[in-house]
Amino acid sequence: MSPAASDPTRDRVLEAARREFAANGIFGARIDRIAKSAQTSKDRLYAHFRSKEQLYAQVAMSEINRLRETVGFDAYDLPASAGRLFDYFAHNEDGFRLLSWGRLEQSPADALAPERVAALQEAIDQIRQAQANGAIDASWEPFDVKALVGQIAMCHLAIPELKAAAAMAICEPALDDRRAAVVKAVRLLFPPAPDKRPAP
Amino acid sequence: MSPAASDPTRDRVLEAARREFAANGIFGARIDRIAKSAQTSKDRLYAHFRSKEQLYAQVAMSEINRLRETVGFDAYDLPASAGRLFDYFAHNEDGFRLLSWGRLEQSPADALAPERVAALQEAIDQIRQAQANGAIDASWEPFDVKALVGQIAMCHLAIPELKAAAAMAICEPALDDRRAAVVKAVRLLFPPAPDKRPAP
Repeated sequence: MSPAASDPTRDRVLEAARREFAANGIFGARIDRIAKSAQTSKDRLYAHFRSKEQLYAQVAMSEINRLRETVGFDAYDLPASAGRLFDYFAHNEDGFRLLSWGRLEQSPADALAPERVAALQEAIDQIRQAQANGAIDASWEPFDVKALVGQIAMCHLAIPELKAAAAMAICEPALDDRRAAVVKAVRLLFPPAPDKRPAP
Repeated sequence: MSPAASDPTRDRVLEAARREFAANGIFGARIDRIAKSAQTSKDRLYAHFRSKEQLYAQVAMSEINRLRETVGFDAYDLPASAGRLFDYFAHNEDGFRLLSWGRLEQSPADALAPERVAALQEAIDQIRQAQANGAIDASWEPFDVKALVGQIAMCHLAIPELKAAAAMAICEPALDDRRAAVVKAVRLLFPPAPDKRPAP
């Protein structure tokens, strides 16, 4: 049996680890809590995953793959891509926390894992292609386009002050309104140009 | 002596705590490491600060106050404000990490501290005033303006993938270029309008 094939213990560990990392981050996560919650032992857990960092990397990569499959990234319609990214995380706070912690706590070597870099490279290539086809202003560096769209899409999720603002009646926290603002901002920066999409 | 007056032990604890929280976050920080680094005891530390959370709240509030004094926020020139915010954090990674961790780990009650809410309210009021004076498109919710400018300014700092991208030659990591992209994005969304500023 290949180690990547389904294994009930391994699957339970991954699920428990996702909850533990989302709640406490990498530094705050406890392997013994994960093992207990997955109804296994630390020894059996370490037979599947070398270290807490390696377990986090697995869980994070699953989340990133799920995000990419669910959200998709369309360089010819960046406002719609941003809206879908907003929706994804607005209804998946655990996933948002999970990945946010990695940004602070993952080692550069793990952040540079080939699978991660390949995903980034794919989006950059799509943006460059869309620029070549006249769909995105070519004066933008592709990497900046990617970073801006992602950050704008997540701008309210990253800001717990939204709850404070709502409590102080500074801002209506209605998700629909925040989503509309995100899409409007991306549309102003990068108007959609589906007509520039090459015929399949 | 008022408890807020300068006290060498208290000052050393705050400085050590800033380093510890920037490196490890709230959950990962260890009070005994902070006490040791500040050359004091845990008991003396707890005489000054009730809890790890309260110590973090103090350190974070100092950082926010320093940020506000250094960066300033000018609703009549949001691109320039974003550029200054970029500069502040680009040269203060500890401050960036410190505040980022709070977003994930601080309790809602602490994030709702009156001093924090007052700072937010002040920025919102400035934006609303600038909208009333025709300097910012009034169709934006003031809170969204604040959130967008802040997130865009920090878009490269929040993304360790920039290092990966640089390593793969996907993107030149030159800070000046990244700063220019940030200012350009904010300028497209919220063009500066210093002429709309009311006479002092």
